[in-house]
Amino acid sequence: MLLSTKRGLQHNAPCIRAWTRRYLSSGAAGNNAKRPGKVVFSGIQPTGVPHLGNYLGALSNWVKLQNTAGPDDKLIFSIVGWHAITLPQQSKELSASRWDMLATLLAVGIDPKRSILFHQDDNRCHTELAWIFNCITPVGKLRRMTTWKARLADSRNANSEEEIDESMLNAGLLTYPVLQAADILAYRATHVPVGEDQVQHLELSREIANTFNRTFVPGRKRFFPLPTADVTPSKRVLSLRDPTSKMSKSSPDLQSRILLTDAPDQITSKLRSAVTDSIAGITYDPINRPGVSNLLTILGACTDKDPADLALELGNRSNAELKSLVIDAVQELFRGPRTEFERLRGEKAYLQQVAKDGADQAKAHSEETLRLVRSFIGLY
Amino acid sequence: MLLSTKRGLQHNAPCIRAWTRRYLSSGAAGNNAKRPGKVVFSGIQPTGVPHLGNYLGALSNWVKLQNTAGPDDKLIFSIVGWHAITLPQQSKELSASRWDMLATLLAVGIDPKRSILFHQDDNRCHTELAWIFNCITPVGKLRRMTTWKARLADSRNANSEEEIDESMLNAGLLTYPVLQAADILAYRATHVPVGEDQVQHLELSREIANTFNRTFVPGRKRFFPLPTADVTPSKRVLSLRDPTSKMSKSSPDLQSRILLTDAPDQITSKLRSAVTDSIAGITYDPINRPGVSNLLTILGACTDKDPADLALELGNRSNAELKSLVIDAVQELFRGPRTEFERLRGEKAYLQQVAKDGADQAKAHSEETLRLVRSFIGLY
Repeated sequence: MLLSTKRGLQHNAPCIRAWTRRYLSSGAAGNNAKRPGKVVFSGIQPTGVPHLGNYLGALSNWVKLQNTAGPDDKLIFSIVGWHAITLPQQSKELSASRWDMLATLLAVGIDPKRSILFHQDDNRCHTELAWIFNCITPVGKLRRMTTWKARLADSRNANSEEEIDESMLNAGLLTYPVLQAADILAYRATHVPVGEDQVQHLELSREIANTFNRTFVPGRKRFFPLPTADVTPSKRVLSLRDPTSKMSKSSPDLQSRILLTDAPDQITSKLRSAVTDSIAGITYDPINRPGVSNLLTILGACTDKDPADLALELGNRSNAELKSLVIDAVQELFRGPRTEFERLRGEKAYLQQVAKDGADQAKAHSEETLRLVRSFIGLY
Repeated sequence: MLLSTKRGLQHNAPCIRAWTRRYLSSGAAGNNAKRPGKVVFSGIQPTGVPHLGNYLGALSNWVKLQNTAGPDDKLIFSIVGWHAITLPQQSKELSASRWDMLATLLAVGIDPKRSILFHQDDNRCHTELAWIFNCITPVGKLRRMTTWKARLADSRNANSEEEIDESMLNAGLLTYPVLQAADILAYRATHVPVGEDQVQHLELSREIANTFNRTFVPGRKRFFPLPTADVTPSKRVLSLRDPTSKMSKSSPDLQSRILLTDAPDQITSKLRSAVTDSIAGITYDPINRPGVSNLLTILGACTDKDPADLALELGNRSNAELKSLVIDAVQELFRGPRTEFERLRGEKAYLQQVAKDGADQAKAHSEETLRLVRSFIGLY
């Protein structure tokens, strides 16, 4: 199972009026009602042990997001099991992945005292709201979404999306973006960090919010905020064996990816054997030098530097020297999280408690949304 | 909102093996495990005050079903609000209809001590299971279902289904049969009384049950029974003003239908002005004499006789004499239920208690199903 999105930080211009109403009505405004916080929602699929691409693409961004959030901002992070089953899964693996992803998020620094962290499938508000949204979402709009083809192609290791046709489409994959809208709007989230591939889905969430407000809300007030897509320029980490494709969980070549659980010598070995080229010196040129550029991307992400700047800095160094730097950086990056992840994996009771507390907090928010939604549509 | 189905009695050949397993595994077998009872599920949309067509088509059959059920049979009747919103609804009317339908079912004789009677939208197991089933249901299969066109045409008073095209289809209406499968299978129901127009949907429920069992259940055991469609020859009650079309809630002509709340003189007046023909004598000939045949259908349904036999019996009588008999029969039929309905309508607290008790019982069954479903698919 792949991550559905690459996510990141964002601070777009707020729609203060909508926020104020939502925020005040949630009874959480406190003394500072003039500048209410954001409500940030993001979801991640249970992918099992994440690889470096997952880490740099999504997980590390959530942590940054959490650690730079204002005191009034609310952060809601969800492991989205119901999305995972839109593609075939092995039961035992999926269950293990659910808990591994929770352990991962804690290990990399999501703090359940600061952020709401929960399993989507522990909160049925999501599927109820998705049903309600299904009833105001034209099928034609969903069929025009392009992501389902990409997801199917990815899951089947297809060479291109052209190998995928609509006969493979199940109703879950078709209505995936509707469940995503429900995920977000159940918390009346104002901000959603997304990768570029998810912008189309977020636009649908905004349309659904708008349609619902116009159709059902008395006085046509903005009950649901129109959530802002906060697009991160994606840090696309590529396969170490074939740097023309993404680092992927589904590649059969284990040398192509670095896992959070890899021991330091495994990290060394995988990076030493990473495919590069025989051109002298270091340049950042993703088209002509994908392998070297990928290493620069990784090093840049680990050290918070721009890959092109790094290339200039490294200038005449050899590929082997570049690899040594990347090895040090990745080993350093994963040292703490790996140990913590391995420790937490054994603490099932603790993980269950975290999941339960998270679900309770999530429900406290979403139940109130659903109560109002039902009053608007007449199911009371 | 129209009733989605016409329902009736049935006693098809049981699939004993599947029943036994289901029944035993539910822990409800008692001392008579050799001949477990059926689990009958049926749903009705909240249509507000029902008319004679609703009553004879579905409601009276539920009562017969209840009153002829064996002691081990379980009867589960649901007012399906989530289905109602697949077509546009007015919020206040829908809410009133929800409670009116509950009052109606009690008034006509559904006994909440004998049958489980509840609001579908009070039990989120339905929408969760519908999501899970969405993920194993091909979109192509849903698009080939023919009922959505009929439902849209009906709701818009269209002259024919050809006026309806796919651009009007929302994802709720497309996946309506999947929610219906979830309604049924959440209780692992074995028998579903349906009208002929719903046979296609029930067939889909069987396919979904089968796909789930094959895909997820260890040893490929029959966790979900394949529910049996019990098709009643439909008692199709026609409009009193235009006996070429069904008696319908959405017709603008109030004289076309008799409501459960109509006073005796309203029943008299509507039936006296029912469109018939000027042919002498009474014959049952739905093609050439739709008005007279419709009156015979109504009289037959009220008196439990065959309309053709009644025609022979009445022979040379006049249409006016036939109408008098129908007036007496319908007044008699509705007398008790009307009074009880009017009384119950005012007892909101009682209705709420019935709904809550029903939902609690429904959940006790479906939560166990969902727990097992989640263990099979890996969401645990």
